[in-house]
Parts: sequence; structure tokens; C-alpha cells
Amino acid sequence: MRVEAFELKDGERVDELERNDYGIIQDPKRFCFGMDAVLLSGFARVRRGDRCIDLGTGTGIIPILLEAKTEGSHFTGLEIQELSADMARRSVAGNGLNEKIDIVTGDIKEASELFGASSFDVVTVNPPYMNAGQGLKNENEAKMIARHEILCSLDDVLRESAKLLKTGGRFFMVHRPNRLAEIISKMCAYRIEPKRMKFVQPFADKKPNMVLIEGVLGAGSEVIVEEPIIVYEAPGKYTPEIYEIYGY
Amino acid sequence: MRVEAFELKDGERVDELERNDYGIIQDPKRFCFGMDAVLLSGFARVRRGDRCIDLGTGTGIIPILLEAKTEGSHFTGLEIQELSADMARRSVAGNGLNEKIDIVTGDIKEASELFGASSFDVVTVNPPYMNAGQGLKNENEAKMIARHEILCSLDDVLRESAKLLKTGGRFFMVHRPNRLAEIISKMCAYRIEPKRMKFVQPFADKKPNMVLIEGVLGAGSEVIVEEPIIVYEAPGKYTPEIYEIYGY
Repeated sequence: MRVEAFELKDGERVDELERNDYGIIQDPKRFCFGMDAVLLSGFARVRRGDRCIDLGTGTGIIPILLEAKTEGSHFTGLEIQELSADMARRSVAGNGLNEKIDIVTGDIKEASELFGASSFDVVTVNPPYMNAGQGLKNENEAKMIARHEILCSLDDVLRESAKLLKTGGRFFMVHRPNRLAEIISKMCAYRIEPKRMKFVQPFADKKPNMVLIEGVLGAGSEVIVEEPIIVYEAPGKYTPEIYEIYGY
Repeated sequence: MRVEAFELKDGERVDELERNDYGIIQDPKRFCFGMDAVLLSGFARVRRGDRCIDLGTGTGIIPILLEAKTEGSHFTGLEIQELSADMARRSVAGNGLNEKIDIVTGDIKEASELFGASSFDVVTVNPPYMNAGQGLKNENEAKMIARHEILCSLDDVLRESAKLLKTGGRFFMVHRPNRLAEIISKMCAYRIEPKRMKFVQPFADKKPNMVLIEGVLGAGSEVIVEEPIIVYEAPGKYTPEIYEIYGY
């Protein structure tokens, strides 16, 4: 990674991604990507030639990792916060990916108007996990928007995803297990049929704190629940699976 | 267990349950209960004084185990096959439980007419897992009815359960993970809100082959996915959790 390829603003740093020698610009005061984004990029199945969109892309971590890991033909990242979108654009440029990744400033609630119906093979999303009214909101605005359903709800995400996808197109989301009933019933209502699920457990004997879910627009009702991802094999020590997903 | 307390017919045997010195009559040519029924009896939360019904009770294993494990006040087992119902009734009598458990011959599809609306605190069900058209059906009639949705569908089970339960009443089901999307979306449609789920994996690194799910009639949308149950710690060797659920 050539750090000097990245145009940095005050408070920003470049972090190495262990893929294709890529880097990513982050600002710890705003929002840094988490393990959820990395696990989503490992869970998503992007095929050769796929056109992909990431809803609420933040730093652009998911399009950048998917460009590195897959043979998708083009990646769009949609982000409502201009400061984040600008940072993501500079990460894309710093990695020399302007031809493969577009970062668009815009609202998930209007995504199908912005891009047109049935225009993508793959939708990925790492949405805000918490209801607008849920939990403590003593964070700055950028973090609040990323974590709470202030600017868009789960319903908005699913409704727009169903419009954006071609029939047979694939939807990949990471979320919290406590929202699972709402996630599945709304996916079914929008015909994004759940086809594959994977829970993420901090330890083998602990309950999951994340769920990865794949849906297929217009598919039949049959879901595979895969073996869980276990994050730690001992306190502070990742399992081999996690090292592999991270690319270390 | 006093084997002579059980009235046996041709081909039947009495198996010991490791609870309260109870026994159960089974006929291997018809249908023997499996680990799914035992796990469901460990998953169901029955409180002191609860009135409980088990839909499609077969041998009566679930009411008998729940009577042993909980302080519920009364248990009903509904079974459409008279030969199975008769066998279950003789198990109840053999265990001296005629005051606590009623086995009723009847159809799940008419359960709310038989027993009245809002008449139970708890519904348990270990329903047929497979769609009527699914899988090989080279079994005898008793096994086919227990395994395939020939006489009742998942929709019938959930519709009648919603009617049978009091508001706030609890629904406990064991099923296959591949039906999960349909299970959750239909539970939500019938207002049996999914509140707790537990997957059952044969080994810690294998995908689950059963799911236990608790719903509460009329509750809010929030579900806890618990740590999975792991069945084997080595080939042929149960984990301590399984031994404990079985009561060995």
C-alpha cells in the first residue's frame, strides 16, 4: 500500500486491508468499520460480471473488499453523509479503483429512483442495527446515523432492495439476531426469500451476536442455516476461520 | 417403573423414561419418539398452574415428560390416529397420571373448536417436518402421518395454536431449519411473535438439523437466539447437556 496515494484530511488515517494491498481511509471520530462489515464481505456471493450495490456504504469498506475478493464487474456504494462519501471516494481513488467503484451521495429511501428498478444482481447492506428509539444515543451524529434507524428503517432497506434487484438477484445483510423475526417476515413480505443464514458467536458456547442472511428475489421458501462462525477460540485469540476471512 | 402397570398389545414394549420412574409404551412398527421430542420438553417453559396442550402427541411423550419436569396443572395430548391415542392413554394410565393428562382423539385442524378459544397457557408441537409432496414416502401410514404434512400443515398448526392460546400464552415447537423462513413469517402473521430460538447442531462445527422456537401470542418483536445445543462431543458420545436433558 502506498500511503501517499491517499489524500487525507484532518484527523484521518489510512488503514491497511489485507487484500490486494488495498488501504482504507478512516476517521476514528466518525465511524470505523467493524468485524460485521468484514464478515459480510466474506458471506456475500458475488459472481463474475455481477453489478453490485452497497446501501449505506460508510467508509466504502464493503465495495472495496468485494472488488478485491470477487469477480463482480462493478460496485456502487450509496452513502447519505457527504463527509463519509467523500472519504470513501478518496479511498477508492487511492486504491486506483475509480473504474470499478462509484460512491454516490444519496438516500437509501430513494435508491430505486436514483438507480432504476431491477438494476443490480447483488445488494449488500450493513444497516443501522437499532430502532430509532432504542439504546443510548450519546454519540456524535455520524455514529448515531450509522447505528440507529434515524434516516432509514429496516423496512426502507428491504423495500428498496427488492426494487433494485433483478429477479433472482441476491441480497446479503448483516444484522443483530434480536431483530430476526422482523427481518425474516419483512424479507418474505418483499419477496426477498431468505435462502441462507449464518450466525456469528463470540465463543462456541455463547449465543450469537450477529446474523448473516442471504435472500433471493422471487425464490421459493427453503433456507439453509449454516454452521455458525465462531470468533474466538480463546479470549483474545481469533479462530482460524476469522483470520482467513480477514486475510491475515 | 413397574412394567406390569402398563397394558401392552401385540408388538408393543415399555421403555423407561429417566424421569420420575415413568415409562412409555412404544411400537417400533408405528413410530418411536426421537430426540426432537425430548429436546422440546427441555426447551418448553411451563409455569406452576399452566394448562398445556400438545398437538399431535403421538405416543404422549411430551405431556408425560412435561408432567415430570414442570409444575403445570394439566396436560392435554391431541392425536388424530386412534391407535396412537389409545397407546398414549395406556402409557398415561401405567404412570398413574389419569388425573393430570388427558389424551384426546381429534384433528389439529379443529383443535380450537374442540377445546375453545383462549383455553391454554402453553401449546407444544413436534409437527410433521416435511411438505406433503416432499421426500420419499415409502413408510407405513402411521410414520407417514407423523413425518409429512398429510393431515395438517404448518399453517394449520399455527392458526389453531393462535386460537388456543390466551394472550401472552407461550408456543413451543421443534422443526427443521430449512422451514425457518416460512415458520417465522407465518408465526408473525398469526401474532405468535417469535421470542426465543435455539438451534441444535449434531457437532459444534456442523450446521443445525433442528430448531427450537418459542413464540408468545401478541408480544412485541424482539427475539433471543440462544447458544446452540451441541448433540455430540465425539462420534457416539453425547455432550453433558444432552445427558442432562435426557435425565441420565
